[in-house]
Amino acid sequence: MSSAFRTVWWEAGQVCLIDQRLLPNETSVVRCTTVEEVARAIRTMQIRGAPAIGCAAAYGMALAAHHAASTATDGDHQQVYDQLAAAKTILDAQRPTAVNLSWATRRVQEKVRRLIPAAPNTLARAALEEAHAILAEDLAMCYAIGRHGVALIPPRGHVLTHCNAGGLATAGYGTALAPIRMAHEQGRPIHVYVDETRPFLQGARLTAWELLQERIPMTLITDTMAGHFMQRGAIDCVIVGADRIVANGDVANKIGTYSLAVLARAHGIPFYVAAPSSTIDLSLPNGEAIPIEERSPDEVTTCFGRRIAPEGAVAAHPAFDVTPSHLVTAIITECGVIYPPFEEPLRRVVAGSE
Amino acid sequence: MSSAFRTVWWEAGQVCLIDQRLLPNETSVVRCTTVEEVARAIRTMQIRGAPAIGCAAAYGMALAAHHAASTATDGDHQQVYDQLAAAKTILDAQRPTAVNLSWATRRVQEKVRRLIPAAPNTLARAALEEAHAILAEDLAMCYAIGRHGVALIPPRGHVLTHCNAGGLATAGYGTALAPIRMAHEQGRPIHVYVDETRPFLQGARLTAWELLQERIPMTLITDTMAGHFMQRGAIDCVIVGADRIVANGDVANKIGTYSLAVLARAHGIPFYVAAPSSTIDLSLPNGEAIPIEERSPDEVTTCFGRRIAPEGAVAAHPAFDVTPSHLVTAIITECGVIYPPFEEPLRRVVAGSE
Repeated sequence: MSSAFRTVWWEAGQVCLIDQRLLPNETSVVRCTTVEEVARAIRTMQIRGAPAIGCAAAYGMALAAHHAASTATDGDHQQVYDQLAAAKTILDAQRPTAVNLSWATRRVQEKVRRLIPAAPNTLARAALEEAHAILAEDLAMCYAIGRHGVALIPPRGHVLTHCNAGGLATAGYGTALAPIRMAHEQGRPIHVYVDETRPFLQGARLTAWELLQERIPMTLITDTMAGHFMQRGAIDCVIVGADRIVANGDVANKIGTYSLAVLARAHGIPFYVAAPSSTIDLSLPNGEAIPIEERSPDEVTTCFGRRIAPEGAVAAHPAFDVTPSHLVTAIITECGVIYPPFEEPLRRVVAGSE
Repeated sequence: MSSAFRTVWWEAGQVCLIDQRLLPNETSVVRCTTVEEVARAIRTMQIRGAPAIGCAAAYGMALAAHHAASTATDGDHQQVYDQLAAAKTILDAQRPTAVNLSWATRRVQEKVRRLIPAAPNTLARAALEEAHAILAEDLAMCYAIGRHGVALIPPRGHVLTHCNAGGLATAGYGTALAPIRMAHEQGRPIHVYVDETRPFLQGARLTAWELLQERIPMTLITDTMAGHFMQRGAIDCVIVGADRIVANGDVANKIGTYSLAVLARAHGIPFYVAAPSSTIDLSLPNGEAIPIEERSPDEVTTCFGRRIAPEGAVAAHPAFDVTPSHLVTAIITECGVIYPPFEEPLRRVVAGSE
């Protein structure tokens, strides 16, 4: 139960992360020394995946606290808190759909707030400890999701996944990939069909890379092939991650997830969502209320940096879609597997994790 | 009612075609002087689209007849016929799914066969005339498809299409794009959502290019977005082309078409297939009998020439899928629009075009 790589970590007062824009061709580490650099890494998707950007943002808060403490006088705890609040505003604004981002920054902010009026250095240390705790808990949650989810993998083990909800999307073990890794570790037959996931190609670039590292058998497909392989009986179940799960069980996840859910239902294939409790947002009643991030059309008219459409072509780029809860067979959380109707079990999961 | 470009044509004893692999970045003409060069152009998808490869193959047959006639003695009609048969075998083998290919080569072969024992030069001239006739008829069929199909475009005119079933896929006006062009020419509101259509990106590279040439409003989307835009009510109907339509109305078309048909049905959106009668193959009872071309996985692990997946990643590449007839709202042919059950009207269309 370990990963061959780290996604995000703290080192010598810097927030370090693998530059996921360059994978799989290049494994390069980005070292952020300011909140702005962390914010840019999140916005430009050098780091992505709801739990992973939560971890990165928590470390961004720790960075802000350290900078504030380094210039503050002994009694100036307010300066630390104000700079944390400013950092939270910047970080939360980078990606609107994933709720883990503001969840993580709020945790660091609250931790510091409760310690006021401690000395600035104490507050900064506490902020970093909270970020470390968020990372460690995320890893533990991923393992728990793996343990709960592995029982859902059908005997033949042909699983379709979309985007990257693996180690690179989390602190290190993955959400959708956690049950898959665990099945593999247990020696069970497993074969992963990986949607390449245009436009950002998280499947082709990141999930395929992770699975190769773990020597888990896989077949990379274009997003156009999922229905065909379901029709041919090649897929036993679908497991995806989530960027936000709201009170009624509607799920926001990477664009293309909704189409897969419709296809899975049409073929009688179970459709599972794997996500930690930090992804659950009970403040929104249903999926219509989830803000869907619109990213640059340039990410559609290009592919991995190369222009693929004629100059002048207009493109749309909603980065996420919403899968209504009635298409979700079950949600795999660190607290266990929950089934529809989701309202009550989602409330229990959130209450249990607080 | 004209196109700004030619897809394939005969010039000074050569088969000329736009190299569709280089579009939209470069408009380059390939000049084939042998059957083998025409075959390679078809196999490598320098020219693609079921009707267009039929036209190219017909000209390839004309090329074979001219070469045979140039070395034959006056009475040696058998040499011309034998070389035509050999050329047909080569050309037909290049793409297994589209039936227009063997339909076109058979037409040229039959035309020559009926004229035997004419002089070799007469046979070669007849082969070229038949190829010209196939091209001209294809253009006429496209216009007719446009005239019949335009009535199906809903008032708001938001049409989703997949791959390229436009002028570049035919002699010049398109199948799926024909009703769209005609609606635009009639001044009706029209807006085309263009699936980029991985792996070969015919939507992003070719359909977007054609629509820009005609100044038809469009939005390019990744294949992952189609379901999302249907869910949001942005799509009024889907129109696609076909590579083969069999006796019961099942349709083979570019990979991803089947997923769109399932999505359209789930959203109550009409799903139309536009194709000339040469696409209909009554010899096969249903879609299960259609050979699905498996192309190189390298076309999946790369995108427009750039590697997007890690070395060692295994990929699948079925180039087509089969949409069962029960998901098809109507088929638009040059003889008119036909509705389910398709068996009887398909037989009438084929009988009428013979």
